[in-house]
Amino acid sequence: MAAQGMLLPNFYSANPLCSPSRAALLTGRLPVRNGFYTTNAHARNAYTPQEIVGGISQDEILLPVMLKNKDYVSKIVGKWHLGHRPQYLPLKHGFDEWFGAPNCHFGPYNNKDRPNIPVYNNTEMVGRYYEEFRINKDTAESNLTQIYLQEGLDFILRQTKAQKPFFLYWAPDATHGPVYASKSFRGKSQRGRYGDAVMELDYGVGQILSLLKSLGIDNNTFVFFTSDNGAALVSGPEGGSNGPFLCGKETTFEGGMREPAIAWWPGHIEGGSVNFQLSNVMDLYTTSLAIAGIKAPDDRVLDGLDLTPVLLNNSESLKNRPIFYYRGNELMAVRLGQYKAHYWTWSNSWEELKTGINFCPGQEVPGVTTHDQMNHTLLPVVFHLGRDPGEKYPISVLSKEYLDVMNNIAVIVKQHQKDLIPGVPQLNMCDVAVMNWAPEGCDKLGKCLKPPESNPWKCVWPH
Amino acid sequence: MAAQGMLLPNFYSANPLCSPSRAALLTGRLPVRNGFYTTNAHARNAYTPQEIVGGISQDEILLPVMLKNKDYVSKIVGKWHLGHRPQYLPLKHGFDEWFGAPNCHFGPYNNKDRPNIPVYNNTEMVGRYYEEFRINKDTAESNLTQIYLQEGLDFILRQTKAQKPFFLYWAPDATHGPVYASKSFRGKSQRGRYGDAVMELDYGVGQILSLLKSLGIDNNTFVFFTSDNGAALVSGPEGGSNGPFLCGKETTFEGGMREPAIAWWPGHIEGGSVNFQLSNVMDLYTTSLAIAGIKAPDDRVLDGLDLTPVLLNNSESLKNRPIFYYRGNELMAVRLGQYKAHYWTWSNSWEELKTGINFCPGQEVPGVTTHDQMNHTLLPVVFHLGRDPGEKYPISVLSKEYLDVMNNIAVIVKQHQKDLIPGVPQLNMCDVAVMNWAPEGCDKLGKCLKPPESNPWKCVWPH
Ligand SMILES: [Ca+2]
Ligand SMILES: [Ca+2]
Repeated sequence: MAAQGMLLPNFYSANPLCSPSRAALLTGRLPVRNGFYTTNAHARNAYTPQEIVGGISQDEILLPVMLKNKDYVSKIVGKWHLGHRPQYLPLKHGFDEWFGAPNCHFGPYNNKDRPNIPVYNNTEMVGRYYEEFRINKDTAESNLTQIYLQEGLDFILRQTKAQKPFFLYWAPDATHGPVYASKSFRGKSQRGRYGDAVMELDYGVGQILSLLKSLGIDNNTFVFFTSDNGAALVSGPEGGSNGPFLCGKETTFEGGMREPAIAWWPGHIEGGSVNFQLSNVMDLYTTSLAIAGIKAPDDRVLDGLDLTPVLLNNSESLKNRPIFYYRGNELMAVRLGQYKAHYWTWSNSWEELKTGINFCPGQEVPGVTTHDQMNHTLLPVVFHLGRDPGEKYPISVLSKEYLDVMNNIAVIVKQHQKDLIPGVPQLNMCDVAVMNWAPEGCDKLGKCLKPPESNPWKCVWPH
Repeated sequence: MAAQGMLLPNFYSANPLCSPSRAALLTGRLPVRNGFYTTNAHARNAYTPQEIVGGISQDEILLPVMLKNKDYVSKIVGKWHLGHRPQYLPLKHGFDEWFGAPNCHFGPYNNKDRPNIPVYNNTEMVGRYYEEFRINKDTAESNLTQIYLQEGLDFILRQTKAQKPFFLYWAPDATHGPVYASKSFRGKSQRGRYGDAVMELDYGVGQILSLLKSLGIDNNTFVFFTSDNGAALVSGPEGGSNGPFLCGKETTFEGGMREPAIAWWPGHIEGGSVNFQLSNVMDLYTTSLAIAGIKAPDDRVLDGLDLTPVLLNNSESLKNRPIFYYRGNELMAVRLGQYKAHYWTWSNSWEELKTGINFCPGQEVPGVTTHDQMNHTLLPVVFHLGRDPGEKYPISVLSKEYLDVMNNIAVIVKQHQKDLIPGVPQLNMCDVAVMNWAPEGCDKLGKCLKPPESNPWKCVWPH
């Protein structure tokens, strides 16, 4: 894919974990604006487990809604993760089709304390993980990626036959833990279960690109490959690697948010090109609209930029665009050019660490991978990510380089914070009553469960 | 180069540092056999600084000597590093030509306490580093890589015109510290001075391959790219990165000895292929002889294997071949298949660490990156390098997997140690009198310096 497209080594997610990053992808806005964050404690990562009450706000305009202006048909395949209560589901937010689940494939659950996660086909559930949709955690075997692949290929085929413009958001669960692969991929990689899952995902992407080619629509289809967060190092040998980058998922170090990213569009994007422009998942919103010839919403702040000059002309024209690294509503760090300034550092708490939860296993950079939340707002910790991609060697606060860099970054941060109007936080309240007890369609399958009484609490986000 | 050749992700140096690894490359034998080690203290890394008395033994048969059986002309360009006293120099060991220096380009020295390192053209010096061969440490500028490139290209051109088979050992000083690049590369990379040096080296390799093609001898020339040790993380932002691997140069963790490796031979080696065979620099001795149709020496143990089935047929037939990781004459670790057993662990001493010398900066794996020499010979620390390339998660000594692995590895280690006849250690004695005071040819240049009186001592190797 990279040989036929453009590699973007400075591409970022919008957040160091799943739900907020995906909300940002589909809204073109930082989680702190679109509401996908928590204020229950300082600088915490929040997402959408089954007990979450909230979801994507009705006030947000998701990408498929905008694409309707040019009659695009939209489908999401795989994990939604923007809220599982009825009003938050994909078909209420612009998608025409959905095959997949609203939450992570954790489990198996006993359906008494927690229900197994449902799998939907459009508006109705068609089964549950560990029941109709099997995942064998002992053998790490499941056909899920193959099922999701077929759903994606089928959608492409149907829209092409119908000569309809389409948007496919192919968001398979793999390689999230618990990791799995189908029988034909299990044991095939050099990298254990995780590697098998990556191989199958890679195969899936290859099948999608092949289909576009064989349908003759490759020159007319913009494809982008990336991830919503860095490898979950906390999963040990069943998680990925962030190569030279520091720490992983859940952190605002490079390992938490710098992502593999490839743009593919034969005939439009130069094959084998590499572009070092700083960019992120929110740009995909704006860029997709630009490619579709649709005007982006002008009634709100968008954090995404239009990357078409980068992709189509291989320019690096968006020179002064910063990358913001948030936990909750706290701005932890900012990157500008090659420089990154940490205003706060935190890997995770001593309490968690003592229980074996470690987002930086085997890594320890004194004063950087701190287990207390360290406030550096008066004198940020600054790295040059070119010379020091692993964030190991802070630039001396006494150097001219430091002064020059912080002069530039401080202006951008001040402006950003002055203009920022945080959205209503959606990830503060939890309640066992809202779990996936009785999703729409459960009655037809005889799979409705009785929800317990409502008893809401402020969700606890430990890191 | 990889796109036109074969990538070998499981390729190793013979030692975690320069001199022993290069001695192994040219002899096809482990440093503990060819004498490139020390017994002055337990498990120490030794090399050939200016004060070293020893060098490559007369009893070793170097690759260019063997290649003479088929009339190959051999040249080394760059750093020799197998001893700088007259009897140890390249033209005494089979090379027909040499342009370069016997030691690292450290300096500048005052020529009173230490002489600057000489640069030789064949048997005579033509100048010294920091004098005729300039290196500006402030600006990190030097033309050395360009000079070495021209020497290499010129040699290829001459031998091709003369229709002579040739062996070029292109061993430029870059990217060793102090890092430098020529003016046209300085400031060009995203990765600071180190990145610039890598870019220039990459350019150099490209020029060599281009010349082979334009001369029409690419289908008749076997080219191999690799390194003698992992990135020197101790150099901080002016050193390289070992990606997901643990620690760096000087250690027997993967970051110290796993190397980038590409084999290139259009028409013979499949372009874009990847082969996971365990292999190492000593195999290049044996493989080169096989390709040249020359019988390898049979009067001694060779550690190198013939990789032609791997390279030419993309087989992984050498399944049970182990990789040995030594410091001095101590077997620190063994890899067999995907498993690596550490018999000893040591990064470096507490004393060194306190002075800021750290071979694993930002990394700390409890019980693995130890600062005491830890003896695990009774119960080795075992990793699965496929699932855990970063050597972070030791396999439980109580598991069946551990027992199975150690059963296999123990047999191989026992046999290896039983058969091993260590060479006479060449790197035990030091003497300021042997430094590069008056290399041959110095008189013609008026650059002879007066050596101090001989006063030999047992070299101190701190790590
Ligand atoms: Ca994720
Ligand atoms: Ca080296």
